Amino acid sequence: MTLRRSEVRKAQAEAAELLARAGIVLTEEERGGIEVAGFGLGRLREQGLELVTYINTDRYCAKELVLFPRQTCPEHLHPSIGGEQGKQETFRCRWGSVYLYVEGEPAAAIKSVVPESSREAYTVFHEIELRPGEQYTIPPGTKHWFQGGPDGAVVSEFSSTSRDEFDVFTDPAIVRMPAIEEDE
Amino acid sequence: MTLRRSEVRKAQAEAAELLARAGIVLTEEERGGIEVAGFGLGRLREQGLELVTYINTDRYCAKELVLFPRQTCPEHLHPSIGGEQGKQETFRCRWGSVYLYVEGEPAAAIKSVVPESSREAYTVFHEIELRPGEQYTIPPGTKHWFQGGPDGAVVSEFSSTSRDEFDVFTDPAIVRMPAIEEDE
Repeated sequence: MTLRRSEVRKAQAEAAELLARAGIVLTEEERGGIEVAGFGLGRLREQGLELVTYINTDRYCAKELVLFPRQTCPEHLHPSIGGEQGKQETFRCRWGSVYLYVEGEPAAAIKSVVPESSREAYTVFHEIELRPGEQYTIPPGTKHWFQGGPDGAVVSEFSSTSRDEFDVFTDPAIVRMPAIEEDE
Repeated sequence: MTLRRSEVRKAQAEAAELLARAGIVLTEEERGGIEVAGFGLGRLREQGLELVTYINTDRYCAKELVLFPRQTCPEHLHPSIGGEQGKQETFRCRWGSVYLYVEGEPAAAIKSVVPESSREAYTVFHEIELRPGEQYTIPPGTKHWFQGGPDGAVVSEFSSTSRDEFDVFTDPAIVRMPAIEEDE
């Protein structure tokens, strides 16, 4: 399921608003280029992510991630590529709150809500709650997913090189980079 | 020339205040651990830098840099180490303004003021002015220095691994990591 251009534009505007609330200044070009990822599921508000990539070289990468309230980035991992370790990433919460789930001892009761229509695609439940100023580093090759809190979240991601096209999602229905459908 | 503990504490408090103005949230531990670099020159307000290192792994690094009004980080470069290219870094201005100087065509008249007492230690004058939302990536092995604008600056630095102890400064008087002198 592709997203329509109008839905993408609306999500870009809302993400820009949350970034502004977090005190983060973007250029006009960056605002217009906010990436809206619906993962081919066609349920952006439930499972999706908005991204601004500041820099992605062959050595490091830095992005801002925006989650709408209770929006979930689906479970995935970053595999080794051509002998190089998978992406290592540090999430630092800047605004709002985010629930992050990684491999490890599962929480007795998690604080977020697993997306109903994709229940089997969420398999790791070790819970880390991040509030502004708090951060967590995810080792390469570790399954993880995350969900915005009740107000959503703005999260800085510092990492090794980003090669999103190689990400391995637990949900076989996911397409990381689907086309956008133009409105009629 | 070492800095006194009381001067370090005062600089930490002022840096924390500028970071807060930029909307950046730190933990209490991070606030207390702000690095105050005087470079062994004993003239912190003229030549110095305040830093918060969020993460520094063997693959990437992320910091916030704080410059007081007209405070200058002295000219230096990041050399290759053991066959690995020198540090590559992206400066993104978050608040205030910063004048960055790198190798290349020198500006006819630069907008900042070279520190009087170290005039010979500044040799590159290709000028890049960064305001909030603007960024610039410095290639490895490139001489550079930077100065905060009239209100100072908060700058995010995204980079490959940081190995500050190997930095090569133009000024032979500089000591990157001098001890701090305890007050009487």
